[in-house]
Amino acid sequence: MQPISEIIKKKPWIGWLLFFATVIVVFILGLFASTIVERRAESVFVYTPQVEHSQFEPRNNVWGENFPRQYQSYMQTADTTFESKHLGSTGKDALEDNPDMVILWSGYAFSRDYNQPRGHYYAIEDLYNTLRVGAPMDGNKSIQPNTCWTCKSPDVPRLMEEHGVAEFYAGTWEMWGEEVVNHVGCADCHEAETMNLRISRPALVEAFDRMGKDINSASHQEMRSLVCAQCHVEYYFSKDVVDGVDYLTFPWDMGKNVDDIAEYFDKIEFTDWIHGLSRAPMLKAQHPDYEVFSTGIHAERGVACADCHMPYKSEGGMKYTNHHIRSPLANVSSSCQVCHREETDDLVKNVYDRQDKIYEIRTKLENLLVKTHIEAEFAWEMGATEKEMDDILMDIRHAQWRWDFAAAGHGNSFHNPLETSRMISNGIELAQEARLKLSRLLASKGHNEPVPMPDISTKEKAQDYIGLDMSTLNAEKEQFLNTVVPKWLEAAKEREATYKTTRK
Amino acid sequence: MQPISEIIKKKPWIGWLLFFATVIVVFILGLFASTIVERRAESVFVYTPQVEHSQFEPRNNVWGENFPRQYQSYMQTADTTFESKHLGSTGKDALEDNPDMVILWSGYAFSRDYNQPRGHYYAIEDLYNTLRVGAPMDGNKSIQPNTCWTCKSPDVPRLMEEHGVAEFYAGTWEMWGEEVVNHVGCADCHEAETMNLRISRPALVEAFDRMGKDINSASHQEMRSLVCAQCHVEYYFSKDVVDGVDYLTFPWDMGKNVDDIAEYFDKIEFTDWIHGLSRAPMLKAQHPDYEVFSTGIHAERGVACADCHMPYKSEGGMKYTNHHIRSPLANVSSSCQVCHREETDDLVKNVYDRQDKIYEIRTKLENLLVKTHIEAEFAWEMGATEKEMDDILMDIRHAQWRWDFAAAGHGNSFHNPLETSRMISNGIELAQEARLKLSRLLASKGHNEPVPMPDISTKEKAQDYIGLDMSTLNAEKEQFLNTVVPKWLEAAKEREATYKTTRK
Repeated sequence: MQPISEIIKKKPWIGWLLFFATVIVVFILGLFASTIVERRAESVFVYTPQVEHSQFEPRNNVWGENFPRQYQSYMQTADTTFESKHLGSTGKDALEDNPDMVILWSGYAFSRDYNQPRGHYYAIEDLYNTLRVGAPMDGNKSIQPNTCWTCKSPDVPRLMEEHGVAEFYAGTWEMWGEEVVNHVGCADCHEAETMNLRISRPALVEAFDRMGKDINSASHQEMRSLVCAQCHVEYYFSKDVVDGVDYLTFPWDMGKNVDDIAEYFDKIEFTDWIHGLSRAPMLKAQHPDYEVFSTGIHAERGVACADCHMPYKSEGGMKYTNHHIRSPLANVSSSCQVCHREETDDLVKNVYDRQDKIYEIRTKLENLLVKTHIEAEFAWEMGATEKEMDDILMDIRHAQWRWDFAAAGHGNSFHNPLETSRMISNGIELAQEARLKLSRLLASKGHNEPVPMPDISTKEKAQDYIGLDMSTLNAEKEQFLNTVVPKWLEAAKEREATYKTTRK
Repeated sequence: MQPISEIIKKKPWIGWLLFFATVIVVFILGLFASTIVERRAESVFVYTPQVEHSQFEPRNNVWGENFPRQYQSYMQTADTTFESKHLGSTGKDALEDNPDMVILWSGYAFSRDYNQPRGHYYAIEDLYNTLRVGAPMDGNKSIQPNTCWTCKSPDVPRLMEEHGVAEFYAGTWEMWGEEVVNHVGCADCHEAETMNLRISRPALVEAFDRMGKDINSASHQEMRSLVCAQCHVEYYFSKDVVDGVDYLTFPWDMGKNVDDIAEYFDKIEFTDWIHGLSRAPMLKAQHPDYEVFSTGIHAERGVACADCHMPYKSEGGMKYTNHHIRSPLANVSSSCQVCHREETDDLVKNVYDRQDKIYEIRTKLENLLVKTHIEAEFAWEMGATEKEMDDILMDIRHAQWRWDFAAAGHGNSFHNPLETSRMISNGIELAQEARLKLSRLLASKGHNEPVPMPDISTKEKAQDYIGLDMSTLNAEKEQFLNTVVPKWLEAAKEREATYKTTRK
């Protein structure tokens, strides 16, 4: 081989080739270096904390200073404009849409009001507004325990840290009115130091403990569902954990499906309320989203809540988790279409098809339950005895439990449509079984024909039928909102002004 | 530019470079040419007809000479070893598994025997064997019309061509015994000339016509389902098309779902049989596979029956459609896993999960229907009048129709699980509604307690309860199989020996 200088001497074009090749390679390397430096600079800019605060800082805007994209997207949960075929973020009156529910919840606060849920932004505001907590004023207590605050605010982990868990649950709802003011937010799901996902509510940890599972061994992907499962689950207020305290407990000890939980409640003889018409010992399902989701096909394929409800978003060079938690139907391109290569309209139609079928049979079950309660009420009026009614009332309890479990988990028709329809089918059978027994009982009392049904075609008529004095309830609520709440907010402002944060 | 010869003179290496580059390119072209010639030769070998035959050649082995791979795989439908969790190809006795069905079909031939379906290979043999066609001997007629042959054999299009469609349907089943002997096969779905898919049965074409659709405009992919839809559908024998003929008709004029078809049958006042116990005017669902499949998610995504039940198979350099039509569960790798990148066990579990949920509520509905029929029978015994029973009997008809539609389409729990559970839910409500009315009616007759239920815990007990003389039926069947069938087969052999085919 000749030395390169000689080769070039003989063939000068080789020299030029080498020269230009070097120029091009160096130029491309320069581009790479530039983009690397730029990304580093970006990431320093993005992740440099602007403010140092504790884990128990309840104010979302303080956390938001360090994570403006996440914070700003989170604040979009204030949006109330999205409406899908059956649900949405508008907070519309569900009882007005469906007066049957008033009858189903007779004797229980849900018969006063029940709206479609709005975004996390409204967690506190909607709790003030609901008639379900009553209007505690002038030394009168709320009809709800403090436990009702548990899922509403990052002030809750703070108070649990300051006072203890059972101490937080103890007492009635107005007690923490000045303390719980920040809507669901950062501290509910994140570690302040690392921003890792964090379980802040004890009930989920305790449920895992009882199942012999260590929640700390959950993977990051599991945590992307488990932080949601802190609240979006079925729970009840146990009186058996700490004396005199409504201790928030997950009824998962015998399993997580609708039948397992019913069996659990039967076994511990738990009852949420006695029905106002049928006198059945009722159960109220909360929002068993996680339980139903986790048996569905998306969970089986390793999808987490956040994958669809908080999909990744790109802004310039930044990819971040969109904290505008909402229905994937409002955001098909970033949620469904990450995996499903179908047109938006087709995917939405697929969801609606499932929902339509579930709504059809769910509505059927609702109608049957209304009849059952009113027929049972009629039986009491005809002089039925407790012994005669016992078995029937248990059927009513079990039938409505299945309806409520199906209806209260708003995503159930999508998360696991077949499991949802299975529970509704079983509910239909049980409701009809109760009605069959009632018809024999009524015949034995001399009434052998259909029981006359009242006019409950509107929310007002239904509420009137079950004996609710709505004008008083509404007037009291208005007074409460105008007098008590402003004072709570004022006191909270003063308290929060004393919180220490270090700005850089 | 210098002439190439001069360049080479100066730099001989360029000459060598050109030489070797040319050698390599020519060598690669040679490879291409070789493989093209080879494939051509192969295709000539594969597609050269060994035998020429008419469209109406009923013998599958004759067609099979030209398409040995398709024919040999088709003959594997003789396999009876596959068993999944709930179904299989073993042909096991469904009434023994589930004696409730005996009661549900009281007064109808299905209560005599009903087995899980075996492969297409057994289409004729299983028809000989079933007690549902009776044992026509010594001038006695079958209890079924000739229409029952329609889906069983490529002899059927031949006979329709020779005699006319209505003429084929006319008469009772034993009439074509010597003529229909080849099990479902090639001529049922293929054109002899081009091997294109072909609709050979008039009912599907006529149904399309009535819906204003032209079946000739169906795409190849649609045809890969429509050839199945010739038989795997709900149909009935209409008396209104040609006088005195059981004319095979699809009840799709008002829509194809379970509710639409029920409405259609109600409108035309069609009844399959009067129930032996309840005297309800019953409907029997055939096998509405296509109707349910076509509303499911696989159909929505453009999947055809053949994609999963007859997936492509490679043998050496040949890719062909596997004609071993069977459950995709027996062949997950070639069916499901073409699209779904999950482990076989996971996919099978997903199917079983769906089936389990459907079986749970389907069984519940079965039990309720049994009670309903027996309670209705009891009401007749207590002196109920037709006027009192009319409404109840219609509820029974509609409830059992939904059960049967769900149960008779063997793939329903997979093809559209939610639609299947929706129909079962509605069936449960209707059955219970009937029972509620029955309880009031019975109370009015002085019986105000549950109706005693007979012991129908085995097929034998259930058949005894509905008054079937099984030993006579079985004995007659044996004699029929030993005397009549051999004669039919002998006559057919002689006839077929006269068929002309041209061998090359």
